[in-house]
Parts: sequence; C-alpha cells; structure tokens
Amino acid sequence: MPASRPVYADHGVFVCFEGGEGSGKSTQSRRLATWLRAAGHDVLLTFEPGDTPVGADLRRIVLSPETGALGDRTEVLLYAADKAEHVETVVRPALARGGVVITDRYVDSTLAYQGAGRALDVAEVEAVARWATGDLRPHLTVVLDLEPEAGLARFEGRDRIEAESLEFHQRVRAAFPRMAAADPDHYLVLDARADVDEIEAAVRAAVTPLLPPRAT
Amino acid sequence: MPASRPVYADHGVFVCFEGGEGSGKSTQSRRLATWLRAAGHDVLLTFEPGDTPVGADLRRIVLSPETGALGDRTEVLLYAADKAEHVETVVRPALARGGVVITDRYVDSTLAYQGAGRALDVAEVEAVARWATGDLRPHLTVVLDLEPEAGLARFEGRDRIEAESLEFHQRVRAAFPRMAAADPDHYLVLDARADVDEIEAAVRAAVTPLLPPRAT
Repeated sequence: MPASRPVYADHGVFVCFEGGEGSGKSTQSRRLATWLRAAGHDVLLTFEPGDTPVGADLRRIVLSPETGALGDRTEVLLYAADKAEHVETVVRPALARGGVVITDRYVDSTLAYQGAGRALDVAEVEAVARWATGDLRPHLTVVLDLEPEAGLARFEGRDRIEAESLEFHQRVRAAFPRMAAADPDHYLVLDARADVDEIEAAVRAAVTPLLPPRAT
Repeated sequence: MPASRPVYADHGVFVCFEGGEGSGKSTQSRRLATWLRAAGHDVLLTFEPGDTPVGADLRRIVLSPETGALGDRTEVLLYAADKAEHVETVVRPALARGGVVITDRYVDSTLAYQGAGRALDVAEVEAVARWATGDLRPHLTVVLDLEPEAGLARFEGRDRIEAESLEFHQRVRAAFPRMAAADPDHYLVLDARADVDEIEAAVRAAVTPLLPPRAT
C-alpha cells in the first residue's frame, strides 16, 4: 500500500479525545460539545467503535468477552472497518457541512491498542487504519494521560479489551504521548488526574483558535 | 504498508476455487475433497467468507440485503477481517499438520469483487487483503469461468453482492482470468459450462502433482 498523506478537512473542525479506560474522555467530550452548542456551533458528538449500524455489530464483536480470542490482524481489521464506515458516513458529512465533530477515540486508539498493545508491526497497523480513514486526521487530538491502574479501577465488569493485562494497558498508555510528541501542533496532552474543570478549560483554550469565526 | 512477499506453505497443499456466482465452485470443491479423502488424504474443505465464529457474523453483515449500503472500504475491511481469522485459525493449522486445504473463495474474490467490482484502487485492496492473510497463497487456484448471466440465473433470492448490477458482475468475471494470466504456474482456468465430470477430471489432473507422495 502506498504511504498515505495526512488530510485535514477544509471545512468543519475535527477534534478527538484519546486515552486509556477511565481517563475521562467521555466526560470531557460531552462538556466540550455542550459548550460549543451553547455558543451556536453545529456539533456532532460521536465515538469509536460503534457509532454506525455496522459499527454497532463490530463493537459487540470486538468488545464482548463472549467473542473470546481473535487473531491480532482480525482485530485490527474489525476496528478498521468500523473506522471506514464511521468516517465515510458520519464524520466526513458533518465536516462537509462545516460542523464541529468531536469523537471519543479514533485512529490513535488503534495504533495504541492494536499496534503497541498487540505484537504487530505498528507501521503496518497504521497503514491499514490510515487507508480505512483516507488518512483524515483531527485538527486537534486531546490525550488524557492516566496510569492504567487508576483508570481500570473505575470498572467492575470489564470488556474484552479492558480485561487485558496491566502490561498491555501500560504499553497502550505510553503510546499516546509518543504520538503527540511526534506531531505537537495537533495534540494537547493533559494529566487526567487534574481537576475536571481545569481540564475542560484547557480543552476550550486549545479548541477556540480552531473555531470558525462566524459563531464565536 | 511495505509490499508483501508471496508465501507458499511448506507443508500441506492449499487449493482454492474461484469464480462468479453459480459457476460450480461448491460442487467441484466438494468432489475434489471426496476424491482426496478416498485416497487417504487429510482434507479440510472450507470457504470464505464465514467459516469461523467471527466470520459467520461478518458473512451475515456483508451478504444480508438488510445491511443495506456499506462504504467500499468498509466492505473490503470486513472481508479482510474474515480472511485474517480464517487463515490464522483454520487454514494455517490444517496446512501445518500436512493436510490438503480446499477453500471455496479466497483473496482473489476480494480483488475481483471489491477491487474490480467497486471503484477502489486494486493495488490498495490487494495490500489490505495480503496483509490480512500474511500473503499466504494457494499452491493452485482453479478459476471456473462463466458469463454472469448464466451463473446468476441459478439464483432466486439474491444476497447483497449477487444483487449488484450485471456490469459489476462482468467486471468481476473478467478479473479472474487476468489474475491467472499474471501467474500461470499457480492457476487453472476452466470453462464452467463444460461437463461437470470433465471439469472434475481436469482439477484432479492439476492437483495430483501437488500431493504428498505418502498417500498417493
């Protein structure tokens, strides 16, 4: 597969939240959406995997403990299929109409969980995930960094991925700041243990310069 | 993704049947399996998509008319996930124990249906399918060539792929002999309208030199 070129949407604003389990991605993505809507923006709050009809089936397969073992490549390709459908039918249309798309997880999660977490060549996993998404990239990715012991403690019944070893989750945790360091203009790394309002303020400050002038 | 290198299993024999709908792949693969088993071979008769637990779910998604539209890349990735699981958990283990694996459809079907049939870059589709399978290739692929009008006439209720346009199926039909022409040592192209016993005899003649000596 030829190396892909990063694509940043000309219209709309694409913001992604990444991090381990229990790092507060859902809370912060909801808070950002609420704030932007109150300011008059067209906001789409979405997530991966599972926010399309076929994606919901794929989410059940990859996360349900009943699925049991899956081949590492199988898992990558299932997540990639979810991303392809999500980008084509949900993300791109919302960006094309000039909206703000906020997604809870995106390509970086695949690179962290399936690339760093599993025993696969990260460059190959990345090529598959980039092809799936046409290499569409967020204008900003917010990484909520948290030690896995703290994040996983919040969960009782764990899904197939959450149930992986602590070492797996430590590799995942380390992967996100590495990606941010390689592309600092498009990342904001925050300590997930900080006060939730402080995190929210830092996210707002980073998103504000990206917003279209008409609604600010 | 780096270009992959074709891998032919050192142990076992890997035979694939390819062709359009109604070309007789199932009949001929069953006949070949019966003949080989009678000669004392360890034979695994399998198919794509769907011959693993997760594959059965994916088969339902890609083939059920209820699924409706899917993104082209989504479709490729769903088929690729099926292949990854099939190769890792079914095909490779059977080859490793020295068996004869006969599959009804494999990578060429993806190249024909999603590469030639859909509006995608065939080289990119191939890179994904090769990565999914570790580029494991059949020792022999039998192409049963048939004009789509003849093959589709056999079906009443058509699945999601069968229901595609005649032009789609004509592009698919043309793709298989092209692949065979590019790698003639590993292909046998037969006219699917020939007598079923004649086809069976031609397949046996092509498979015989591949068989391990111990059971012939």
